[in-house]
Amino acid sequence: MKETIRELFNQSLENADTEDVKVLEQLLKGFLNSKKNSERPLISHLLNMEKTVDAETSYITTPINSITDNSFRIVHGGITATVMDTAMGILANQLLPEGYSAVTSNMNIHYIAPGIGEKVKASAKLIHKGSNTLVMEGSVFRDDGKQIAHGTGTFFIVPPNDGRKI
Amino acid sequence: MKETIRELFNQSLENADTEDVKVLEQLLKGFLNSKKNSERPLISHLLNMEKTVDAETSYITTPINSITDNSFRIVHGGITATVMDTAMGILANQLLPEGYSAVTSNMNIHYIAPGIGEKVKASAKLIHKGSNTLVMEGSVFRDDGKQIAHGTGTFFIVPPNDGRKI
Amino acid sequence: MKETIRELFNQSLENADTEDVKVLEQLLKGFLNSKKNSERPLISHLLNMEKTVDAETSYITTPINSITDNSFRIVHGGITATVMDTAMGILANQLLPEGYSAVTSNMNIHYIAPGIGEKVKASAKLIHKGSNTLVMEGSVFRDDGKQIAHGTGTFFIVPPNDGRKI
Amino acid sequence: MKETIRELFNQSLENADTEDVKVLEQLLKGFLNSKKNSERPLISHLLNMEKTVDAETSYITTPINSITDNSFRIVHGGITATVMDTAMGILANQLLPEGYSAVTSNMNIHYIAPGIGEKVKASAKLIHKGSNTLVMEGSVFRDDGKQIAHGTGTFFIVPPNDGRKI
Repeated sequence: MKETIRELFNQSLENADTEDVKVLEQLLKGFLNSKKNSERPLISHLLNMEKTVDAETSYITTPINSITDNSFRIVHGGITATVMDTAMGILANQLLPEGYSAVTSNMNIHYIAPGIGEKVKASAKLIHKGSNTLVMEGSVFRDDGKQIAHGTGTFFIVPPNDGRKI
Repeated sequence: MKETIRELFNQSLENADTEDVKVLEQLLKGFLNSKKNSERPLISHLLNMEKTVDAETSYITTPINSITDNSFRIVHGGITATVMDTAMGILANQLLPEGYSAVTSNMNIHYIAPGIGEKVKASAKLIHKGSNTLVMEGSVFRDDGKQIAHGTGTFFIVPPNDGRKI
Repeated sequence: MKETIRELFNQSLENADTEDVKVLEQLLKGFLNSKKNSERPLISHLLNMEKTVDAETSYITTPINSITDNSFRIVHGGITATVMDTAMGILANQLLPEGYSAVTSNMNIHYIAPGIGEKVKASAKLIHKGSNTLVMEGSVFRDDGKQIAHGTGTFFIVPPNDGRKI
Repeated sequence: MKETIRELFNQSLENADTEDVKVLEQLLKGFLNSKKNSERPLISHLLNMEKTVDAETSYITTPINSITDNSFRIVHGGITATVMDTAMGILANQLLPEGYSAVTSNMNIHYIAPGIGEKVKASAKLIHKGSNTLVMEGSVFRDDGKQIAHGTGTFFIVPPNDGRKI
């Protein structure tokens, strides 16, 4: 099995151009980082997400390259959704007491400009904290400052040791 | 540069367990497939998406593993959004005349059950075809048949050689 | 006080044309019906909503006239939202055990064609019934059969004698 | 015909309590105001909406009473949608050049607290102005300052003398 993979890797590297090499590097680094920091999901590592959080806002930055792009060479709507969901989810979980979790129950996204440039940056803030749900707002920007998406999300609050499989 | 990557690869493989090996295999196969079929975005290949389309419905299937999962070990909401957006976008583009493209302008998703099992399958169908937009419906199911997400999307119709950068 | 109102009524009737007379009739009949059937909200009576429900679908029909129209003389988006919310809410409540209530927590609507003609008809069906929420689908049609809106809604399930003010 | 209506009016007034009298007064004043100011739709007058607009925000205030309430005696979700859509639509239209109109193509609302008190106030601001659409944000508050709803909307820009029936 490991031999098959070594063969796949050699094929991958063989005709790799500069962009390809960068992509392979990001994927392998992401994989290795996920072994060291398994609290964050693998997809966060593969997309090389960097997070920063302050009291009221969370931020997720991810580099734009062929891993994030759709076939029009702009950031894939699903990737934009992924970084927005991640930014909102991180803040939602941070706002809850120890042991409680927040899981997305609804997400609505308006795509307003093409995602191009070096990286995208998602930010999230709280709209409403209720007893059962949190409503969050998410925004995604390019590095030239232009907003590419605006959205909102509802997160369910799951108590500690809740019977439910979340 | 290539040496750095070879080193990263060796580290990745060194302590890899069975699940890790499967993940590395899927990522490398995905990368290689994207070189052969560059019409589809890399993320589709990395997620090992398989598509089928008939006259009125498109389907996207993707295996569930640590590439798709969040830190609760259920499918990440952003990945669910990615497969739903892909299924809706494929059908939207297929419904347009040659040269026209459809780009997502709005997506709304209700997450209704945890994504677990072997794979998820997204399907999309048309709600409305207008002169400027298409409204699509997307559903995502587990392999036990349970629906995990339901959503709708608006797609802008971009004419051929449109001045706009989509 | 009642004299002021009588004066307002006389002014209303004085220069009323045929459409005006129909509107005044619908408003007054709606008001009177709300005194007889106070389980339904006044706005349902003012809009002369008729409901039918079967096991899996609920329907709300409302006549189109200047009460429903916006300044472009097509059905106001808020009225379309009102009939869709009503149709979804009626079915949601019917699907719950005695004493439980369903209250709207999220509604998303795509407006796809202008609301014109004699009446609009909203229908609702269930997408998902969970332990805390119901996800519903709503559609609104003209009497020529054309769909004017498509939407989804999340409804919270409120247990009997719940402490919360819903 | 007018005699029938006079009879309906007399019946309405006969057993009217103080709240009923206020409702009838608001409906009749709304009807009469719509004859004087026919640019705004009748429903705005019936709900006694007051609007204020400044450069970047529009506001709609409407009194809470049995016209706005649902059967739980809190503001009906459809009425909340109506005031939010109105606030967003007014600002959208104001932001466009003479002759252009904005029509709602999508609206998404999170209901976060029950609408109670004397009145609700909706505000709207611009998220994004594109060449074909505007994306707006709407918020609805009670008079004690608590937010009851948060939403977003997409509005299509309709050029002057556009062939389409909007």
